[in-house]
Amino acid sequence: MEDVEKFDIDVLGEALYDSPLGLSKRKGDDIFNFVTDKDRVLRYISLNDHNNCVKGEQEPVALEKAGPREKIYFNTKKTKAAIVTCGGLCPGINNVIRSLVMGLHYFYEVKEILGVRYGYEGLIPSYGHGFVDLTPEYVKDIHQFGGTILGSSRGGQDVGEMVDTLYNNGIDMLFAIGGDGTLKGANAIGDEIAKRGLNISVIGIPKTIDNDVSIIDKTFGFETAYHVANPIIRDAHNEATGAYNGIAIVKLMGRDSGFIAASAAISMPVVNFVLVPEMHFELEGENGFLETLKKRLDAKQHAVIVVAEGAGQNLFNKEGKEKVTDASGNVQHDDIGLLLKNEIAEFFKKKDYEVTIKYIDPSYIIRSAPANPGDSVFCSGLAYHALHGAMAGKTKFVVGRVNNQYVYLPISAVTSSRKKINMEGGFWFAALESTGQPFEMR
Amino acid sequence: MEDVEKFDIDVLGEALYDSPLGLSKRKGDDIFNFVTDKDRVLRYISLNDHNNCVKGEQEPVALEKAGPREKIYFNTKKTKAAIVTCGGLCPGINNVIRSLVMGLHYFYEVKEILGVRYGYEGLIPSYGHGFVDLTPEYVKDIHQFGGTILGSSRGGQDVGEMVDTLYNNGIDMLFAIGGDGTLKGANAIGDEIAKRGLNISVIGIPKTIDNDVSIIDKTFGFETAYHVANPIIRDAHNEATGAYNGIAIVKLMGRDSGFIAASAAISMPVVNFVLVPEMHFELEGENGFLETLKKRLDAKQHAVIVVAEGAGQNLFNKEGKEKVTDASGNVQHDDIGLLLKNEIAEFFKKKDYEVTIKYIDPSYIIRSAPANPGDSVFCSGLAYHALHGAMAGKTKFVVGRVNNQYVYLPISAVTSSRKKINMEGGFWFAALESTGQPFEMR
Amino acid sequence: MEDVEKFDIDVLGEALYDSPLGLSKRKGDDIFNFVTDKDRVLRYISLNDHNNCVKGEQEPVALEKAGPREKIYFNTKKTKAAIVTCGGLCPGINNVIRSLVMGLHYFYEVKEILGVRYGYEGLIPSYGHGFVDLTPEYVKDIHQFGGTILGSSRGGQDVGEMVDTLYNNGIDMLFAIGGDGTLKGANAIGDEIAKRGLNISVIGIPKTIDNDVSIIDKTFGFETAYHVANPIIRDAHNEATGAYNGIAIVKLMGRDSGFIAASAAISMPVVNFVLVPEMHFELEGENGFLETLKKRLDAKQHAVIVVAEGAGQNLFNKEGKEKVTDASGNVQHDDIGLLLKNEIAEFFKKKDYEVTIKYIDPSYIIRSAPANPGDSVFCSGLAYHALHGAMAGKTKFVVGRVNNQYVYLPISAVTSSRKKINMEGGFWFAALESTGQPFEMR
Amino acid sequence: MEDVEKFDIDVLGEALYDSPLGLSKRKGDDIFNFVTDKDRVLRYISLNDHNNCVKGEQEPVALEKAGPREKIYFNTKKTKAAIVTCGGLCPGINNVIRSLVMGLHYFYEVKEILGVRYGYEGLIPSYGHGFVDLTPEYVKDIHQFGGTILGSSRGGQDVGEMVDTLYNNGIDMLFAIGGDGTLKGANAIGDEIAKRGLNISVIGIPKTIDNDVSIIDKTFGFETAYHVANPIIRDAHNEATGAYNGIAIVKLMGRDSGFIAASAAISMPVVNFVLVPEMHFELEGENGFLETLKKRLDAKQHAVIVVAEGAGQNLFNKEGKEKVTDASGNVQHDDIGLLLKNEIAEFFKKKDYEVTIKYIDPSYIIRSAPANPGDSVFCSGLAYHALHGAMAGKTKFVVGRVNNQYVYLPISAVTSSRKKINMEGGFWFAALESTGQPFEMR
Repeated sequence: MEDVEKFDIDVLGEALYDSPLGLSKRKGDDIFNFVTDKDRVLRYISLNDHNNCVKGEQEPVALEKAGPREKIYFNTKKTKAAIVTCGGLCPGINNVIRSLVMGLHYFYEVKEILGVRYGYEGLIPSYGHGFVDLTPEYVKDIHQFGGTILGSSRGGQDVGEMVDTLYNNGIDMLFAIGGDGTLKGANAIGDEIAKRGLNISVIGIPKTIDNDVSIIDKTFGFETAYHVANPIIRDAHNEATGAYNGIAIVKLMGRDSGFIAASAAISMPVVNFVLVPEMHFELEGENGFLETLKKRLDAKQHAVIVVAEGAGQNLFNKEGKEKVTDASGNVQHDDIGLLLKNEIAEFFKKKDYEVTIKYIDPSYIIRSAPANPGDSVFCSGLAYHALHGAMAGKTKFVVGRVNNQYVYLPISAVTSSRKKINMEGGFWFAALESTGQPFEMR
Repeated sequence: MEDVEKFDIDVLGEALYDSPLGLSKRKGDDIFNFVTDKDRVLRYISLNDHNNCVKGEQEPVALEKAGPREKIYFNTKKTKAAIVTCGGLCPGINNVIRSLVMGLHYFYEVKEILGVRYGYEGLIPSYGHGFVDLTPEYVKDIHQFGGTILGSSRGGQDVGEMVDTLYNNGIDMLFAIGGDGTLKGANAIGDEIAKRGLNISVIGIPKTIDNDVSIIDKTFGFETAYHVANPIIRDAHNEATGAYNGIAIVKLMGRDSGFIAASAAISMPVVNFVLVPEMHFELEGENGFLETLKKRLDAKQHAVIVVAEGAGQNLFNKEGKEKVTDASGNVQHDDIGLLLKNEIAEFFKKKDYEVTIKYIDPSYIIRSAPANPGDSVFCSGLAYHALHGAMAGKTKFVVGRVNNQYVYLPISAVTSSRKKINMEGGFWFAALESTGQPFEMR
Repeated sequence: MEDVEKFDIDVLGEALYDSPLGLSKRKGDDIFNFVTDKDRVLRYISLNDHNNCVKGEQEPVALEKAGPREKIYFNTKKTKAAIVTCGGLCPGINNVIRSLVMGLHYFYEVKEILGVRYGYEGLIPSYGHGFVDLTPEYVKDIHQFGGTILGSSRGGQDVGEMVDTLYNNGIDMLFAIGGDGTLKGANAIGDEIAKRGLNISVIGIPKTIDNDVSIIDKTFGFETAYHVANPIIRDAHNEATGAYNGIAIVKLMGRDSGFIAASAAISMPVVNFVLVPEMHFELEGENGFLETLKKRLDAKQHAVIVVAEGAGQNLFNKEGKEKVTDASGNVQHDDIGLLLKNEIAEFFKKKDYEVTIKYIDPSYIIRSAPANPGDSVFCSGLAYHALHGAMAGKTKFVVGRVNNQYVYLPISAVTSSRKKINMEGGFWFAALESTGQPFEMR
Repeated sequence: MEDVEKFDIDVLGEALYDSPLGLSKRKGDDIFNFVTDKDRVLRYISLNDHNNCVKGEQEPVALEKAGPREKIYFNTKKTKAAIVTCGGLCPGINNVIRSLVMGLHYFYEVKEILGVRYGYEGLIPSYGHGFVDLTPEYVKDIHQFGGTILGSSRGGQDVGEMVDTLYNNGIDMLFAIGGDGTLKGANAIGDEIAKRGLNISVIGIPKTIDNDVSIIDKTFGFETAYHVANPIIRDAHNEATGAYNGIAIVKLMGRDSGFIAASAAISMPVVNFVLVPEMHFELEGENGFLETLKKRLDAKQHAVIVVAEGAGQNLFNKEGKEKVTDASGNVQHDDIGLLLKNEIAEFFKKKDYEVTIKYIDPSYIIRSAPANPGDSVFCSGLAYHALHGAMAGKTKFVVGRVNNQYVYLPISAVTSSRKKINMEGGFWFAALESTGQPFEMR
């Protein structure tokens, strides 16, 4: 039984200021109402879940609804905010930055917003990166660009030193846009702030192109990722059909979860095989991947394979697998795309079965693309909801969507594990329906 | 209190055949499980809704989950399906057709699938349109094209004659892709079938680019619509800034609901005003739209306006409004875009305040575009879920998504009213946050 | 016989300074050589032209090759440049601005570059528009945006006052980006400068999306224009095939010349008719457009028509043509797209021949788009060649390409007449081959 | 002195049939005129070239103008054509196929057009590939897809056997779309045909994405190639600026010539270095590439490098260069992109200078893309001019553009050497102006 309390959000203290947002407190006047901390969204929404709750007389798991609060914690005109972007690129970072700045400036009249340069490095003075002054004028066009105008870096930094920097610069709230490591770092910063008794709010905006953040529906950039992959797969199909027994392999992002690979495959139904980290497949054997691929070629003389970077980890470091080599005789490790390419080539060569293989790795092209319109809307929503929560004095939380609703979740609730494709769920079944590949290849 | 039973789905009879889909009936084997008619999804998912149910000891409103059933009604190898597409173009129609054909052919081994030409006209023999034989080879590339390969037409046809055609051609299931009128027509066909005691299933796949179908999260094509509008708005902004006091007006689809206009505006945050049918605004008056626009120009010397085609209906046929004329002195009616253009021109002319107005109407460009990757995934899901329901002998139902889950709904449940933007809800507030326009302009 | 001298370029005076560009004066060192005023490109390049010259012992018409000169007129470090953009939007203006600024700054070390706001208005102090300081930092990203960052306006201003402004602000060279009127204005400014004995160079960069500048191969923005039109036509075809006897009409730019319409039609060969200003066609008559269209519908049940805005001027103001009305009964004038739509509707209505007509006017969408990669390369070339000429003290000239080579031409040589499609030439024949339309429709 | 006669085109025999094209033979009737074999275009078009000819009393080099001839060699209604596509993918192949089929069918009323499957393999019966029947219905939509609907293969086949196949199948003309090897093969086929005294025309349509065919202005697909590369470079810039001292390396096609790399770089002026096969550069040394790169990073903290695949061949197999290794310690050969990546990493590591390097290879993504609108127009022109020449009985020729005019050239004239960027010419200078890189790095 899941602990309902684990979804409670920490606050810095009592919110005593009136929100400067001229919202309404009554229904029916066509003006948006302030959201209260008691507005909650069910996490589990099947009738079964409901009935089990009722039967067990249990309170259902429900998450705090995001949105502007009537009372806020900060004196907005004296508030100083900072924004930091960490980890690899992901479409939409600039959209989040832009909306944070616009919302802080125009809605809460925050006068000073600092852009932290190059990730958590920017909070360590010895790097000498300095801050950027984020104003509406500075950010007004940045939503049209991929990447991050602030720069990024990977890895953590000394938490105490970072809190020193926040304190020394009079920063009241830190928005940290980043992945699992970044969010854990943000939580540690929040813990240190609490330990020191400071009044600094720390807010996480989950950024992982792989869409593998626990509990929440989706992360920003994921949608753009498979949208950008879509025409690349369409054209990989041209490579496959352009040669007799042509095989095109497209490697997409997805270390632990195959959401991008599977979504891209469904979106461009010329894909015949999609291989994701969540599935177990074998290359060899009568029902293994290679024989299944051969059947496909026998029937249609071409095949398109989409593989997530984290798929097939069981195929590495197997006894006798050191022999996987590239054209130059070099042993290859770790890259499932290259492993597949080599194993497929070897398999068909042994059979004297001519194939032509094309291997395509568009990862950087995808990560660095600008947000598509769907992610633009989403990033804007995440940013505004993040700053409403921050203003209310909430801390160590992330903003996300669950069952199509914006909610606040404690950072700790989403960093404990990663979301994966349910191999028995409807999404994966849709991928199988689209590709026509067998349920099992082993 | 909503009637729970109104969401029950009609069936043609008992499903006695085993599904040819080799799915699983137990959890944990990594193979998708058949869905049962008892799997249901809650419609209302706030904690309040839950508590009210519990307090009132009421059964919550829950919708039948879509998906493949273990027992099916039709003897698949003898089954003959037909597909008809009606009404205006909408991105994704061909994707739906393609997935229906692929699923019927490869998963249920249906040998004959007829494409009905030019909407319901194609079910009336006197038009002489004939049928198209839909095979995997015929449809394999059509997802890359906008429009409908079957052709379409508007308006209804004689229900009895259409049922005659279905019966005379041995058709067992009719998939009708279309909007409100089409769905009502499909329901009438289903009623007539029932009256005659025939065993023909009628399935609706809601198609409205406006996204205004009641209850369901979104309709296919809507997402593509605002994605295609996005760069058009981006560049309209160039027209606005390219002239001193430049004003760009972009009219988008949305007869009764402003989802496209508002989504497009949020997705491209250069928009300063978004006007939708759900809002009431006035042109004149100190707080009216025109004075508000003037303030914007005073401050920034340019403005971008996105207007849904159905917005501002209160501004037509008002006394004294006959004077709205175009450059040639012709009275204009009904087109809110032209009305705005003319009223804005007149207003500023009276003030001797120079403005440059550009009016852009990309409606046909949007409607005829191919589905974007998101809609491609969605159309595929709609099609597969539709055919699973059809095979189970369900009839007079639509497939849709509610709270991110595919469900079956009686056609009658979704055609009684149209979905509109809640002026007090989070989505509209997001539009206001993005544009910065006032809550009220009157 | 064409006067060879009419292609001579005016200069402000003798060029005495050494160019700061470290170029070479000898062949074979892999370093670009300075171009001399004697390097010239033939205008007419058929063997016949050559033989006629030889036979007549005439000097062939040859144009001054553009490029950096060894000796320059201006003391670059003290030079102050200004850039003005006039007339309607056209893809690539910002690319030209960016390359001018980058070239002036980095190659000639010009310290001060003024951006004139809102066209020639910006040279009239009473408008109060002020100047923008154009620096590399300011312009570095602008090539990614359509429109003009400087703003524009239409129409001329007082020449004397504009020269006063140039003089009073110490401006040494004015780059005027604009169409026929703008170039004539620039020439008048150059004349006034000469009259006053000032040392200010005036350079024109021809901007007309219609590609109708005399002598030169093409103008910037034109290529982007038909590239942007291409998918719009592709999807208009979906509208045409989506209805029985569907007709899609796409109106494209082209007041006097049909280059965009014809190029777009060839580039997307679903077009069945392309109508341009250079052709004479009639609606009525056995071989007229309407009967020809009917034959097309009889055969294929759909048709796509691309029409240039200036086509069919003979069809207006004809006796009895006042009857052209829109759906509301309003008389329509001047818009060939609407005229066609109405005439087609009327024609088929009289015949009781059902058709569905969709009319699409994407003009502003095209004009405001960012430059495509081809125009980006081209704009960069135009800008660099313009500033090399300016530095050499040349004045009252434009830069353009003739027979694939960058050349300098006197403004007066290109503003005397407009380039039109040769109805007997290969380009128009290619359009006819692509559409399959008859040579004549009258 | 170039031999003028080397540009003469072989013919199968006297053209005795009247062309079915209803063209004109007189000027001024607004109908395209037949082109005669005497219509020629000058190859060299500078005034100097002209004067040298006149002085030396030499005939200028002039090329036969392409276009429909009044008299044709083949009895069109009995003519059987075949089309073969060879070598790697290149945008536009399907456009060429489509226009050939449409032109043969509609203009010359050719009834039978065979599509040869999988390159020259398809002319060798033992492969068993069979032919495809190419009809207007079959090809009408293929211009919207990249790749080749006919499939392709690399390498030659037995010439005698191929001529047997042509003869045995009654083929009158073979259109061979392919690169240098394919064209040489076509010439050999033509020679064999001549030897046997057969009446089969062999026409080459040069296909090389690298744009390196001698004499002619450009090859189809090249323009699309750098257009597709453009946004990839734009976003690679995001990767570069997204990290402190970020370096993005984009490898583009170009074995012997750097046209794609240089054009792409000019088209997206965020590129700081473009490295092409035609230039000689060294990595080491005070003015070498690595020190130059370091200066760039010192100044701007990021750099974007575009490298053609054939650049820097001097850097391989140098003594002591075996040490180039990848992350796994494997020796790398031949891939300049990886070599650069490794050498850059090593160089900065030695200096303890932190950099982040991203390596992007979009080659297959580019090759398999659909033709852009410019190439669509171009492919259509190539195809129509090819078939006009074929119909006139010309053989062993290619169609191409020289100085913006379509001409016919003997295959032998274009296969003897490859076109390269002139390091002293204006195009390369434009690349240097755009990147700001030094003339020399060694």
